Formats: sequence, C-alpha cells, structure tokens
Amino acid sequence: MRALGDLIVRRAAKMLTNCGDAPVFEGPAAVIIRDGRVAKVVSELDLRDELAGSSDAPELDAEGRAVIPGFVDAHTHLVFAGDRADEFAARLEGRRYEAGGIMRTVEATRAASLDDLVAGIVERAGRCLDGGTTTIEVKSGYGLETETERRCLEAIQRAGDLVEPELVATFLGAHLNPEPGYIDMLIEEMLPVCAPLASSCDAFCDVGALSVDESRRVLLVGKEHGLTPRLHAEELDHTGGAQLAAELGCASADHLVHASNEDAAALAAAGVVPVLLPATSFSLRSSYADARRFLDAGAEIALATDCNPGTSYTTSMPFVVALACSVYGLSATEAVRAATAGGAKALRRDDIGIVGPGARGDLVVIDGEDWVDLAYHPGMDTIAHAVKEGSIVR
Amino acid sequence: MRALGDLIVRRAAKMLTNCGDAPVFEGPAAVIIRDGRVAKVVSELDLRDELAGSSDAPELDAEGRAVIPGFVDAHTHLVFAGDRADEFAARLEGRRYEAGGIMRTVEATRAASLDDLVAGIVERAGRCLDGGTTTIEVKSGYGLETETERRCLEAIQRAGDLVEPELVATFLGAHLNPEPGYIDMLIEEMLPVCAPLASSCDAFCDVGALSVDESRRVLLVGKEHGLTPRLHAEELDHTGGAQLAAELGCASADHLVHASNEDAAALAAAGVVPVLLPATSFSLRSSYADARRFLDAGAEIALATDCNPGTSYTTSMPFVVALACSVYGLSATEAVRAATAGGAKALRRDDIGIVGPGARGDLVVIDGEDWVDLAYHPGMDTIAHAVKEGSIVR
Repeated sequence: MRALGDLIVRRAAKMLTNCGDAPVFEGPAAVIIRDGRVAKVVSELDLRDELAGSSDAPELDAEGRAVIPGFVDAHTHLVFAGDRADEFAARLEGRRYEAGGIMRTVEATRAASLDDLVAGIVERAGRCLDGGTTTIEVKSGYGLETETERRCLEAIQRAGDLVEPELVATFLGAHLNPEPGYIDMLIEEMLPVCAPLASSCDAFCDVGALSVDESRRVLLVGKEHGLTPRLHAEELDHTGGAQLAAELGCASADHLVHASNEDAAALAAAGVVPVLLPATSFSLRSSYADARRFLDAGAEIALATDCNPGTSYTTSMPFVVALACSVYGLSATEAVRAATAGGAKALRRDDIGIVGPGARGDLVVIDGEDWVDLAYHPGMDTIAHAVKEGSIVR
Repeated sequence: MRALGDLIVRRAAKMLTNCGDAPVFEGPAAVIIRDGRVAKVVSELDLRDELAGSSDAPELDAEGRAVIPGFVDAHTHLVFAGDRADEFAARLEGRRYEAGGIMRTVEATRAASLDDLVAGIVERAGRCLDGGTTTIEVKSGYGLETETERRCLEAIQRAGDLVEPELVATFLGAHLNPEPGYIDMLIEEMLPVCAPLASSCDAFCDVGALSVDESRRVLLVGKEHGLTPRLHAEELDHTGGAQLAAELGCASADHLVHASNEDAAALAAAGVVPVLLPATSFSLRSSYADARRFLDAGAEIALATDCNPGTSYTTSMPFVVALACSVYGLSATEAVRAATAGGAKALRRDDIGIVGPGARGDLVVIDGEDWVDLAYHPGMDTIAHAVKEGSIVR
C-alpha cells in the first residue's frame, strides 16, 4: 500500500474546492497536503509564509493549470467477467441478439475465479484512474447466488488493496428477481453472508426486475444489517422507485430517466442524491434524464459512469462530464461538482469530493487552465495528473 | 523525415480493409508493408509462405487485436491561435458572450507568427495521432486577409514536415464575407497567392457567411487555379449549398445538418461525399445531421472532427465514431468506414483509408478484438498502436 503522502500542489490557475460559499478559489493557488489530508488551500503568494519558510515536502507544479477534487464515480458495476461487445454491435445494427442481457454476464461471472475477478477490477480501476477517478463505488450483482455474490464482494475488497483509487463496495444481489423464492433466499441466506463485505445495499427497481414492494423488503433488511440503502429507480419506466428512495431515505436514487417533478421534489426533500448516468443513455441510444429538474427541485446531483459490460462500458468521468454538458445542458462547474462533491454525497462521505481542510488529498490537475476543458475537448485526454491522498499516482 | 518503412503486422483478430466485396478480412490476419506501402494482406497461416521462409522486416504483433486503416480526418481547422474556452463556458451557462465567434480567432491568428502557428499545428496533430489519425485535412480561414491566409497555409506546409500524420491543405479564405468587396479581393488577390499552397478550395455557404452565388464564384475561380472544390453546406440553415456542391462536382459537402432528401440524392448522383461532423452538434448542443438519409441515397459518407476552437475543439476520431453510432445510429463498421475510406474519398484519394495492395501502410491497432470497441468504450483510449507508412508512430 501507498504511504499517506505530504505534497504541495503549486501554481494552480484556479481550484474547484466545492467548499462553502466560495467553491471556486481563484489562483494562483496552492494546496498543502500532510499525511494524505488537505491541511490548507492558500494563495500561492501566501505559501511561503504558510510553510514558515521551509518545507521538505515534495511539490507538484500545476504550471498554471486548473485543479479539481479527484472524481468520485458513485455508480459502477466494475466486478464481472466477460464482455458483451458483440451484443452491443448487434444492437447498433438492429439485429436481434439471443441470450444477451445481464444473465450472460452472470454466467461468465459465476465461472470466474476470485483471482480473475480481482484482475478484472484492477485493470478497470486503472482505467478509471487514467480519467482522474480517485474513488469508485463498485456493486456486486452478477452472481445472483450466494457464493458468487460473496466472491464478487471479496474481489472488490482484495482489489482495493491493489489499486490507487479507493473502492467502496455495494451489495446488489437484487440486480434481478430471476425465480420464485429468490428474494426470500436473498434476505435469509445472501444478506448475512454478504453484508459484512459491503457498506451499501442496492436494488434494481424497474419493469423486468424488482417491484417497489420487493425492493423495499430488500433494502429494509439490508438496513438491519447496517447497509446504507440506495436504489436503481425509474430507468426503463416509471414504477415508483424514486418515491420509495425518498420514503426509505436512500443515500441515492440512480438513473431516474423517467422521474417526474414530484419525484424530484420528494428526493430533494429527503436528501436523496439523484445519480445521473448519461453514458448509459448514450450507449443504449435511449432517453436522457432531465438533470435540470433535480437541480431546480433543490437536490444535489451526482454524475457517474455506470461502468458495466452491457449498457455503459466506459470508465471515463471526463466523458461523462462532457456528455452531461451537451445533453443535460449543465455548466462545466455544475457537471464537475456533480462528478466530485455530488458523488461524495451519494456515498455519504464528507472527506472526498472537496478540497478543504481535513479532506483526503485527492486531486486532479486538468490539462488546461479551466475545468471547462473537460467538456471543451470531448474525447481527448484532459487529465494532466491525479493525486491520491497526497501521492502523485498519474 | 521518417523513412518509408518495411513492417509486418501480425496476428490481427480481424481487419477492416475497406477493399472490394469483402471489406472485412477475418483473422488471424497479417499485413506485409514494403517501402511504406501495403504489399499484401494475408492469412497469418500463409505468412511464412508469402515471405518465402525469411524476412528481416520488423514485426508488430497485434496480439489478437483488430486492425483498421489509419483514420482520415477530412475536415479540420487546425491552424489558428488562441482558444475560446471562456466563450464555450459562457454558452453552456446561457450567458451572452460579446466579441466571440470566428472574428476573435481571426484577431489572434493575425497576431501570431509563422512559428507560433506551426507549433500549434504540431501540438494538435500529435493529439490527432494519439487518436489514430494518420491523415488530416487542414483548412486556412482565420486570416481573412491575404498575408495571414498565406502564412496559415505556409504553416500547414511546414508543420507537415514535422509531424507523423500527413497534412492536406485547403484554402478557406471564404470562411466569412466580412465586408463589401471582400469576395472580389479574395478572387483577385488572395487566390493567386494562396492557391499554390493548397490542394482544395472551400467556402462557408450559409446564413451570415457566403451566399450560393458568392460561393459559386469563389469555387469556380479556385478550380481555374487547380483547386478541388468543397463546401460548408446547410449547417445553420438550408440555403442551397448542397445543390451547389452537386452542380460543381465538389469533392465534399460538409455539415449538412439541414439537408433534404433531394439534397442527398443530388450529392449521391454527383459523387459528392457528405462529410458529417457530429462533434460540432455535440459542442453546440444543436441538431444533428441525418446520416442515414445520405446512406439511403447511395452516398459514401465521411466522418470528421471539424476540430476548431469555436464549435468543436476535439481531435479525437474515436470520439466521433462513438458519437456517430449513438446519435446517427450507424453500425460500428459503417462509422469506421466513414472515418477511413469515407474521409479518403472526400479527399479524392485512393491510397489511404484502405488496407490493400499499393495503399500507404497507414494502420491502427485497436485496443480490443473488434473495432466496435471504439463505440463500446466511449471516451476511453482505445488505440493500441498507430502505423504511418510502415513505421510504428504510436
């Protein structure tokens, strides 16, 4: 494991701190990181005084570039085996593809060893880091039986010791409801085994997956096991998941393509973070959520990749930010805030997604003077450096 | 300058050759390149016989990945100074931005030295190469007076000697019609000076730019100077540019957001290549062209970046391919063909955009078993290697 670092990031053109009433710190700015945590954000002009004349901490010269918090990708399915490129190709060509869907990945994942699953996460988390992501929520859910769900969660835990980004595990045994009695089995058998390996419990509440009542059952028992509830809601159709998320005080309600104004108001009132996943709509060529609806209702939104082999196989938060600006009409600052502080709130974390005293020293130096470059240069590599807890990791 | 290389690319899972009736060569496949040109595409199994037992040519092991021709980006404005990130940000925020638009880049470009312009092209062409682009059309057009237009074209020529991708220069003095008498001046003064430095002549035929009659005048005189005509047509509104492009037998008609079925039929009948620029619509948050309209009419379409500081500041052909699949509903093979053979046809070239005997040895090894990965992994780095005339350049 990497040691918690001391680092001084210097000469930032500007910095998105996401802190308090002045979330943008105009430069030239510097960040002092000690033992992996942000000690202070200061003007470059005051840096010498702050350091009391001397410091032997390593320095990262931002060279007049913009600095933002490391991306917090609050919704991924990074643990799986196999891919579904041929199914994706068939969909683009309008060809029917038999034996596709989640169950195909379930079969491959059940057949994979723990080592294979770990290797897959390690490879993908490295790609996430290339895009500036320093914290990744990872859901299980391609097991749909106890042993594989447990193995997937163990793989997340093991991979977490091998990669630079922090991995945060969510139990998504309720990814489908494949057969009669499955929910009972999930509650009685899977949850006791899986809960110790996860911090959240998720359910896919939608047509063809779980009903509102089934989702409620799962999340309530998950709570009894100490798991924070979150919910896939209103993606394929409007089935009532958003209201359930508000009722249960979920940390997040995710997708929300078909949510209403009433749903947005309920989520905002309950402090549930709408996690929006535009790359999924992009890959599926389906409708996009209405991001402005949630902002207008007063919610703090998050942006995430939904990285999974079926409907959104990208690890790139810069792509998601650019897409959110184009299809949602977010400003660059709104989009980057959603991809950092918004993701942190969806994970109920106050130590990431910001650059302020006490926060983890997780930063991205943009390859440009402003974070608008993430959207201004879509598809290009716009990440100059990534810093994780005070160590330069890219 | 790089020497023309000998190279054997081995163990391709499959290859998009764009040649004849079997444009996809199923692997394992190999390409033999001699003196920078493709000698033969063969099955890996036949390679030993083809080489008559011995060869000292360097090898590139594709390791079971897919191979496509190098991307041909047939529409860019890569020669300019300054950027307009703040204007882009203001547009996203719905703020009015005074003094923006093409004229702002014109002012910065007029103030730039030849060396500065060369350096800008070199930097951007390197980014293009990162995305697998081996041929780039570059338009002048941010001078709007003779000396700067000439300097821009000279910069393209000089940069062409410094970068790996081939640069193909287009004279776009008719980027706007800024003042009375400008078109006369362009014809009498600019064209004689600029024509020797370019291979094509372009005009921006649209509301706020040139009329159909003005565009016709410019392109016809350009033809007299030996320049191939091409035209920005039907981008902002429908003004008749597509029909003009058909009438003049232009090599390409570009943008075509507002083109009709009749326009598509006329372009196809005249052999004019519709060059579609989805990244521009993405960045402007405006309407997308209807790509299928042109394919249904029997045209060969091209995809390009339109890379420019105002309306599409990306160099990434993989992003354009992914976007074309999502917004146009192209298959991955249709999109990659448009980004390679389509671009070549738009440049009236038969030695690029294909992998066949006599063609330049310009290849991309995709970081995956199929080129569908370009669209399956949007925003990610999907280029494993690029080869230019038999040399491994990335």
